Amino acid sequence: MIEGREMNRLTIIKIGGEVLDNPRRLSTSLAAFAAMTGDKILVHGGGRMASDLCMKLGISPRFIEGRRVTDAETLKVVQMVYAGLLNKNIVSELQSLGCNALGMTGADANSILAVKRPATPVDYGYAGDIKEINGNLIIRILKLNLVPVFCPLTHDGRNQYLNTNADTIAARLGAALAFLFEVGIVYCFGKKGVLENELDENSVIDSISEKSFQDLKQRKIVKNGMVPKLENAFQALQGGVNTVRIIHSDALAGLSQGKAEGTLITLG
Amino acid sequence: MIEGREMNRLTIIKIGGEVLDNPRRLSTSLAAFAAMTGDKILVHGGGRMASDLCMKLGISPRFIEGRRVTDAETLKVVQMVYAGLLNKNIVSELQSLGCNALGMTGADANSILAVKRPATPVDYGYAGDIKEINGNLIIRILKLNLVPVFCPLTHDGRNQYLNTNADTIAARLGAALAFLFEVGIVYCFGKKGVLENELDENSVIDSISEKSFQDLKQRKIVKNGMVPKLENAFQALQGGVNTVRIIHSDALAGLSQGKAEGTLITLG
Repeated sequence: MIEGREMNRLTIIKIGGEVLDNPRRLSTSLAAFAAMTGDKILVHGGGRMASDLCMKLGISPRFIEGRRVTDAETLKVVQMVYAGLLNKNIVSELQSLGCNALGMTGADANSILAVKRPATPVDYGYAGDIKEINGNLIIRILKLNLVPVFCPLTHDGRNQYLNTNADTIAARLGAALAFLFEVGIVYCFGKKGVLENELDENSVIDSISEKSFQDLKQRKIVKNGMVPKLENAFQALQGGVNTVRIIHSDALAGLSQGKAEGTLITLG
Repeated sequence: MIEGREMNRLTIIKIGGEVLDNPRRLSTSLAAFAAMTGDKILVHGGGRMASDLCMKLGISPRFIEGRRVTDAETLKVVQMVYAGLLNKNIVSELQSLGCNALGMTGADANSILAVKRPATPVDYGYAGDIKEINGNLIIRILKLNLVPVFCPLTHDGRNQYLNTNADTIAARLGAALAFLFEVGIVYCFGKKGVLENELDENSVIDSISEKSFQDLKQRKIVKNGMVPKLENAFQALQGGVNTVRIIHSDALAGLSQGKAEGTLITLG
């Protein structure tokens, strides 16, 4: 940071399926998000609704190790649900709360370019790995006092959408904008933080460093979906993001009032 | 216009269901649109796909005099198809053509506020009449060299989407931006223009004034859906829009090269 010049704060909130599938939790989260001051971006995941619609349309959703396999038919449904239903419902609700939201996929304003994940060793179909974030344009959108709301779809620039992990989108957005902002990322989910004992909601680990992460992984305290979530968090911090927290979505309001909620992820 | 100061040109293209339901026509139209110079906005209608999806989901689409009746279940489908599928397909295809598209509903950036149409004399459900266009914000988005792509959904500011006629959206956008731009609106559809004889594709009427419109209506040459389309055109002109044309979507490329395609709508 240049001395004497304070950087503007940018908050990136990611809400996952557990929040999206629960209307009360979603409304609570959006109210807390709308009330936050300063520049902010919302990133949302998928949730159950795409699988529900696939089922109604006779398309069997397929998962490999918890990750969706996105064939062409599934991608159409995912596009309708993520970009049309979930994203636009969030935009409309935020607008009703006085927050000037702008719903986006990675194709809108060419904001997030990705490449299709190679089909070996595992073929996830139309899944994308982020290649480039168009940070300058996102900054210009923020300067219009608009609040970008990203759904978990990116594009390859050749007329192909790609299903992309929302945790990764939040992390990469943060890293791409860290040159201009003091960036805080908050991953909201259905537990109070990373738990020492998965059966005890109150066993929240206050902070996890890269070193303690390795230890927690070895002891199988951190496993399954929490592993890539924490890897995304560390990548964000390595990319220049100032803070990453993992919290319960209901704690979002408290966090913005300065409470130390959930698990703080740190490099050192 | 202030003497000695030339106004920038803004082109608003509207493509309807006949174009959206035909992949070849859609691609031709998008290629022509992408190649246009100067500021531009694309507005698209609905097409058959929402009805198809309603049917697959066991929701019977209902129409009164050719206008869709939008109940809550239908609105969800319409939102998925218009905002998720059609709008995002167009954005992705335009991006692949080098056109920096940004897909929007009226809720995005609070761009188009509407009120629910009164339930009497005819209850169209969640149909909206435009109350206000946020012209200043749309101008600032255009200044970022972004190309707004509007789907036919507006919002009421209280977390309710409303199905809104795309011809009217194009007309009202044009009128709202006419104080700053020399605005040309082009309505693209499946015929070469307004026809003198509906059985003869080559009987295009070169131009229609408000006076000749009354005459054509009385003689039943202009009828059904063409009546509100022309009313929208005249409202746009009265609101300060410079030119309105009704053309075949395939003629869009020719038009941007200066050919006088289709039917020109004039006030005088």
